[in-house]
Amino acid sequence: MSITVVGTIGLDTIETPFGKAENILGGSAAYFALAAAAYQPVNLIAVVGNDLPAHRLDPLRARGIDLAGVEVGDGPNFRWGGAYHLDFNTRDTLFTELGVLATFDPKVPSAYRDTDVLFLANLQPTVQQGVVAQLPQARLRALDTMNFWITSAREDLTRVLGMVDIVFMAEDELRQFAGLSNLRQAAQAVLALGPQVIVIKLGSYGALLIDKAGQYFAAPAFPLDDVRDPTGAGDSFAGGFLGYLAAVLAGGRAPEQADYRRALLHGNLMGAFACEAFGIDRFTTLTPEAVAMRYQQLVAYTHIEAGA
Amino acid sequence: MSITVVGTIGLDTIETPFGKAENILGGSAAYFALAAAAYQPVNLIAVVGNDLPAHRLDPLRARGIDLAGVEVGDGPNFRWGGAYHLDFNTRDTLFTELGVLATFDPKVPSAYRDTDVLFLANLQPTVQQGVVAQLPQARLRALDTMNFWITSAREDLTRVLGMVDIVFMAEDELRQFAGLSNLRQAAQAVLALGPQVIVIKLGSYGALLIDKAGQYFAAPAFPLDDVRDPTGAGDSFAGGFLGYLAAVLAGGRAPEQADYRRALLHGNLMGAFACEAFGIDRFTTLTPEAVAMRYQQLVAYTHIEAGA
Repeated sequence: MSITVVGTIGLDTIETPFGKAENILGGSAAYFALAAAAYQPVNLIAVVGNDLPAHRLDPLRARGIDLAGVEVGDGPNFRWGGAYHLDFNTRDTLFTELGVLATFDPKVPSAYRDTDVLFLANLQPTVQQGVVAQLPQARLRALDTMNFWITSAREDLTRVLGMVDIVFMAEDELRQFAGLSNLRQAAQAVLALGPQVIVIKLGSYGALLIDKAGQYFAAPAFPLDDVRDPTGAGDSFAGGFLGYLAAVLAGGRAPEQADYRRALLHGNLMGAFACEAFGIDRFTTLTPEAVAMRYQQLVAYTHIEAGA
Repeated sequence: MSITVVGTIGLDTIETPFGKAENILGGSAAYFALAAAAYQPVNLIAVVGNDLPAHRLDPLRARGIDLAGVEVGDGPNFRWGGAYHLDFNTRDTLFTELGVLATFDPKVPSAYRDTDVLFLANLQPTVQQGVVAQLPQARLRALDTMNFWITSAREDLTRVLGMVDIVFMAEDELRQFAGLSNLRQAAQAVLALGPQVIVIKLGSYGALLIDKAGQYFAAPAFPLDDVRDPTGAGDSFAGGFLGYLAAVLAGGRAPEQADYRRALLHGNLMGAFACEAFGIDRFTTLTPEAVAMRYQQLVAYTHIEAGA
């Protein structure tokens, strides 16, 4: 009855047209966990540097996230710096310092063995494979990836794609992986490798869901009047999506197509929450009421009354 | 009980990764009229060159489009050439030869005076103003524009924006006109000039509708397995949108918010039909059954069952 995520805890330096922040808490596992924790208990597996004071993880503890899977490595923490342009659709990576992430070999604590949902955030595909093997009883396994692995570790990525149920890809990554410009055709190429569901992230345009049963579902992004910092939006999206599905499983039934559709809306909601403040800040004050209200708004934004 | 469009009839040369066609019938008024004719009778106002054989307009006549407003100018027809890249999201204009379009001064035939819906396709804003003035009794006036007029005729464009009810803009044009990157904020800047509704075209991502009453509606594009030629998709979109609203008016009532939402779906449908074949070809065989079937599919693609 829980969600386990393996990914990064980072120290991010972010520049936007509206401000700059240095060494703030970030990383794929942090964003995912904070978003998913709005739905179900979350276990977090990651490595941090010996230069990261323990209190820096307090925002995760405050949301009830289990940090027994966080090991302290012998070296500096993973650091990333990025700068966004005015339209927030493109960003430049300023630096990437892997630190202890370079030798990360995740161990799944035995207490996490009863997890329902496993999320493999963007990591080296062989590392993702190792974690799947340690959690054979997970009922839903999902992964995210990035263009770097598509070009540098394509065989390993293809293998781990065959080990999961749900794949998250940004549209450009999907096109690149499949070598096809048409998203529906490219999605079929990924589904043929094993996954039941592919979720295509369209950035500020929302997301698509395509499954092996032939379902096609489109959900728009939740529109924001002010985007402050898109860092972590993709991982927060995955957190909302899988968090919602974990809650369905915790309710005692297997998710159906209608649940996957609602999950896609929750993914869009969490992606938007991530963008509303610098770093993880918006999640530290997120309430169930705010989530429920935005969900109803997003449903209304696409509602069509019956009739032609 | 009709729709009147003023725009271009062109001879297009189109290159795509999958083929090339030279001097095929195109132009904003042709695409709009063919799409709108699926819903209501259409009157077309345009100028053609004296080098365009009359039979070239037979595909328009075959769909019942009234061509009494088409004058033959003293010179060559408007010609445009464009080349699409593999992803179809960008195109290069190869050439633009205005011909008789350079001195186009549209006259509205008296038989068109009872028109319900007027569409001003992308033309010089002062020309658009002149047509609005000739059809003062139209119940819905709409316009499209392009970046060229935003930069070269901003004052005239601002004036004609104050004379219409509905504005169609591509997202990049809207951002450029308003000088704002956020689409909702940019939409408010346009609505403040007079229009009741702005429709934001998102290309392969669909469209948004924002109105003065505070309504926000998002509709995804109709997904195609094969895009052959996106030429005319924007004008066909406007044809589906306004054609549907004209049908509501013809039914004896003013369109309500729910009708505008359905109209946005019909716009997306017609935009997709335009992309399915080279030039106008898909419209020459379009049936009401195909439109109705795709409409139900598009509704299903965003349908969410009640519940959180």
